[in-house]
Amino acid sequence: MLERDMAQIQELINQQQWSELRDLFSQYPVPDIADLLMRAQQTDRVLLFRLLPRAISSDVFSYLESEDQNEILKGLTHEETRNLLLNLRPDDRTVLFEELPGRVTQKLLNLLTPEELEKTRLLLGYPEESVGRLMTPDYVAVRPEWTVGEALDHIRKKGRDSETLNIIYVTDTEWKLMDAVELHRFILADPRQKVAELMSHSVISISAFEDREEAVHMMLRYDILALPVVDSEGVLLGVVTFDDVMDVAQAEATEDFHKGAAVTPLKGSYRETGIWELYKSRIVWLLGLVVVNLLSLELMAYYEELLASTIALTFFIPLLLGSGGNTGSQSSTIMVRGLATGDIEVSQWAASLAKELIVGLALGLTMGLAGVVLGTWKGGLTIALIVGLTMLLIIVVANLIGVILPLVLTKLDLDPAVASNPLITSITDATGLLIFFAISRWILVWIH
Amino acid sequence: MLERDMAQIQELINQQQWSELRDLFSQYPVPDIADLLMRAQQTDRVLLFRLLPRAISSDVFSYLESEDQNEILKGLTHEETRNLLLNLRPDDRTVLFEELPGRVTQKLLNLLTPEELEKTRLLLGYPEESVGRLMTPDYVAVRPEWTVGEALDHIRKKGRDSETLNIIYVTDTEWKLMDAVELHRFILADPRQKVAELMSHSVISISAFEDREEAVHMMLRYDILALPVVDSEGVLLGVVTFDDVMDVAQAEATEDFHKGAAVTPLKGSYRETGIWELYKSRIVWLLGLVVVNLLSLELMAYYEELLASTIALTFFIPLLLGSGGNTGSQSSTIMVRGLATGDIEVSQWAASLAKELIVGLALGLTMGLAGVVLGTWKGGLTIALIVGLTMLLIIVVANLIGVILPLVLTKLDLDPAVASNPLITSITDATGLLIFFAISRWILVWIH
Repeated sequence: MLERDMAQIQELINQQQWSELRDLFSQYPVPDIADLLMRAQQTDRVLLFRLLPRAISSDVFSYLESEDQNEILKGLTHEETRNLLLNLRPDDRTVLFEELPGRVTQKLLNLLTPEELEKTRLLLGYPEESVGRLMTPDYVAVRPEWTVGEALDHIRKKGRDSETLNIIYVTDTEWKLMDAVELHRFILADPRQKVAELMSHSVISISAFEDREEAVHMMLRYDILALPVVDSEGVLLGVVTFDDVMDVAQAEATEDFHKGAAVTPLKGSYRETGIWELYKSRIVWLLGLVVVNLLSLELMAYYEELLASTIALTFFIPLLLGSGGNTGSQSSTIMVRGLATGDIEVSQWAASLAKELIVGLALGLTMGLAGVVLGTWKGGLTIALIVGLTMLLIIVVANLIGVILPLVLTKLDLDPAVASNPLITSITDATGLLIFFAISRWILVWIH
Repeated sequence: MLERDMAQIQELINQQQWSELRDLFSQYPVPDIADLLMRAQQTDRVLLFRLLPRAISSDVFSYLESEDQNEILKGLTHEETRNLLLNLRPDDRTVLFEELPGRVTQKLLNLLTPEELEKTRLLLGYPEESVGRLMTPDYVAVRPEWTVGEALDHIRKKGRDSETLNIIYVTDTEWKLMDAVELHRFILADPRQKVAELMSHSVISISAFEDREEAVHMMLRYDILALPVVDSEGVLLGVVTFDDVMDVAQAEATEDFHKGAAVTPLKGSYRETGIWELYKSRIVWLLGLVVVNLLSLELMAYYEELLASTIALTFFIPLLLGSGGNTGSQSSTIMVRGLATGDIEVSQWAASLAKELIVGLALGLTMGLAGVVLGTWKGGLTIALIVGLTMLLIIVVANLIGVILPLVLTKLDLDPAVASNPLITSITDATGLLIFFAISRWILVWIH
């Protein structure tokens, strides 16, 4: 769809039909306008952006990637930039300032009114990836002693530009959060009722210093549209809304995917990430894993004679190590994800261990049987015995390594996602070789 | 916190302090009550559930895992079950009926009123994992020709038990969806205005037959609280709310994590999944990958003489194959996740390929250098040359395999997540051996 629209837009640009362009734009939802803008030729972008009705231009702006934002800012006048910044939601403004180069941010901060500057400084004062960075200070609060009618009047007066009007907060005179009441409960209530009568006194809130991932967990758990953010005294500071939290949830999942493949999480999107950044995010792990792989190298060198005497044995090394690595990747991924979603709890480690011991044994027996068949086919009975037994043991041990490592990491207050598939594979490779050589030597000695 | 509360609750149960128990419960948010219930002794669960005020008991019920739901249903009378079912939100009821054994579902369906039965049948009629299964038919719709005051009266009358009151839908006389207007816009508007004046005519909707993952993408993209669901004629059927979509987003991410480690996605939580299910979800892939690993076995057997003549070469096999597998896992994970979030588009495959070619070359050169150092240390100059060159080529090729396979799968309309780390590793193992033997033979011949 967007491809065809883009052609039409390009046509209108070429014909300089500005008012048609403006009309066409106003038919799209904001994220689609942002997309169209990014697909336009670079020279046309600022021009198209200027055409947007002022009411939506700041919304569109907040949907752009930071590179494109920077580029558009360069093309705007002082006054246009100022208007844009003042119309941006405080949380989107924080994100923008976070991602722009420091010099640019400083220049932009000078354009703000003292009041907006203070809001921005407040948000930027919280640590990266904290809830404080996500929140918006735009919310409407009422007092428990007001009537519903008074509260509705207040909402009408204050609410024009609040994006979080779906939930109204009740605070005491010191702005301490007392409750959160959905807007529709005000509408369904009798206007003469007191606000206090609508209160349930079971408000869920989060500290501004908490990790943003915790906001995701709380929203998933309590199914609330917006999470009020408080300081250590319980004073209401702002609100985190579901759309920000969904974005965070997706970003955190992406981080965990990358960690799972031993990639240091990328800061921006893949498209935005440069080659040097991509290289850096991967080479550290690859080189680090070489160190783990040195164990395998040493083991192979140590058992040189054994290898040389029965060269057919070496044929099975990639198969055996591969199968062990696959099994370990499976169990570690199940554990790491289970720990991340709360499905698996460290306190119940014994249950997980017992379960995986049985599953691993079942997998090991099946794979061991496959090993016996392959061994018989490719190398005779002795080889079959060695390959079958090694396979059984490798699978059971690799499976347990995949279970234990994430649990131990969590217990040590480290991120269980460090137990990435490549790390597990490298560890199970060395362990697998040890098992392989031990069993080979034992059986070869026993037979002769 | 819950541990301490649980002790207090157990105490109250032992002392048969029912009214205190009821008071204590009412202080907790619903998900916490569900947690406390599941932590209670099995014999006390039905008893505690009966104590819950009727207004929240069905909410608490919908937070329980399906096993616990089934257990509680067994302990309730006919009449209690009926009340519970009628109070459940239609979408939660659908989930319940989906997960219970068929016989039980049939029995429960008989308890519903004809009207509720029809709603449930409608939802259950949609395919699994479709949007139709997620939606709730509880929404409030108004007509464009009404005044805001009339609309608010209608909302007050209809809205008592609608969970989706934050957004009001505008339909024509044939229930075709015309627009979605946030509730607060009705409150901020003049009561004498027409509803039509509040409309923006840019409503986003989704088909009931669409995959539920599409609902996640749309909500993330358009930042809306609730997604209206329509049939092929545009008639409004129901609404999907953000809390259901967040749950789906998490479940889909978990599925992708499992696929990424070659585990067939589990149906329920890890805790609920039995040993046989876990075994099945993994053994198919492990055995399938053995077939891919047979290639490596064949290659090793084919180059037996080469291996026997320079046994020191074999020492490096785990290191070389391991590094190739790690590199392929990195690039395939970046691609698969990028494709899932829309960060990477198949249509721009050439850009991804070019980028990864350069990144792979940089990684390969660094790792190749490490290979030369290790080779010199462990086996002399000839080995160093072979290991270094092989490492360089393996890294570049493995990296490209990780990029190309997900793109090809997507292009073939298959799930790119099939390109799991274990599959990539098994493929890069065989490719890596091929490169290793080719380079070894070439250099050994060239030297002698």
